[in-house]
Amino acid sequence: MRPEQSKALIFEAAERLIASQGAASLTVRGIAAEAGMNPSLVRYYYESTEDLLIAFFRQMAEEHSRKVEEALCAPHPLRALWNLHTRAPSGLLTMEIMSLGHRYESIREELVRHMDAVRKHVSRALQDKLSGEASCFGTNSPSGAAFIFLATAAALIADRGIGIHSGNAQAEEIVECWLDKVESAM
Amino acid sequence: MRPEQSKALIFEAAERLIASQGAASLTVRGIAAEAGMNPSLVRYYYESTEDLLIAFFRQMAEEHSRKVEEALCAPHPLRALWNLHTRAPSGLLTMEIMSLGHRYESIREELVRHMDAVRKHVSRALQDKLSGEASCFGTNSPSGAAFIFLATAAALIADRGIGIHSGNAQAEEIVECWLDKVESAM
Repeated sequence: MRPEQSKALIFEAAERLIASQGAASLTVRGIAAEAGMNPSLVRYYYESTEDLLIAFFRQMAEEHSRKVEEALCAPHPLRALWNLHTRAPSGLLTMEIMSLGHRYESIREELVRHMDAVRKHVSRALQDKLSGEASCFGTNSPSGAAFIFLATAAALIADRGIGIHSGNAQAEEIVECWLDKVESAM
Repeated sequence: MRPEQSKALIFEAAERLIASQGAASLTVRGIAAEAGMNPSLVRYYYESTEDLLIAFFRQMAEEHSRKVEEALCAPHPLRALWNLHTRAPSGLLTMEIMSLGHRYESIREELVRHMDAVRKHVSRALQDKLSGEASCFGTNSPSGAAFIFLATAAALIADRGIGIHSGNAQAEEIVECWLDKVESAM
């Protein structure tokens, strides 16, 4: 098996275990068992659970960054960014990664770097577009609006996984009407 | 030791373990060890880990509901609700409880009931207050605005625990300026 294939199997196993038993209890041994691989082969690639989790997060973050860059090139970048950040079936993986950030300093650093970069992309996409009808809560701060935009998207996804419904459709409609105004002013 | 004292010790131990090792790996045995209690005493109160976790969540939810009701009686209820939902040191406990909601149907049900109730309180507090200058993204839906209000607060707390900063101060300022308009129109 080629290294990329092995690593893909390892990451798939890690993702399944994170969903079923939570990220905090992952071990190299458990991931090897889930992937049907010898623990020593997993350890050949990743010396510790922390190394494995960092590599797993980096791969997720790189894929996310690629999708953000694609969205930025779309005809309506903010609408594309909104779709990207509201279409996941649940927020469980994100929540588990955030929990890991509380436990591993190395993951915390990667997480901060990635989240800051994504927010700055959204903020730049909003630059000079927030005025008059398209203001955000009556103000024109692109970085503040980017924060609220992404927070609302994350909450919609988190709720979808749990089944909370109060106000979700209305919040979605509010942001979508606002995006129409923001992007029609282009 | 009185039952209430024992239960308080059990809940404190559960909270510490959730913070240090994640909610998914909790067991009655581990909680008993953390609380310095005999596992059979813990099992006398809670037959299973799930029973214990439901009771723990109910206690958290009741305390939260009490604080929400207090805030609703404050001179500026929305400002009080905002303070209540943005002052926690981190969002770790909330994220771990949300993760548990993915694993235990009983906790999911309690979580949905509680979150829906809190959103409805915030939504009612916003009723008839969203117009003109005080609109939310240019619209007047109290339930949508309540969703965005709580999503922004939750993201501010989650970020505080991890150390993500991009746009946080600006988002906080946006919501606070908006609350000034909403509550000055009273």
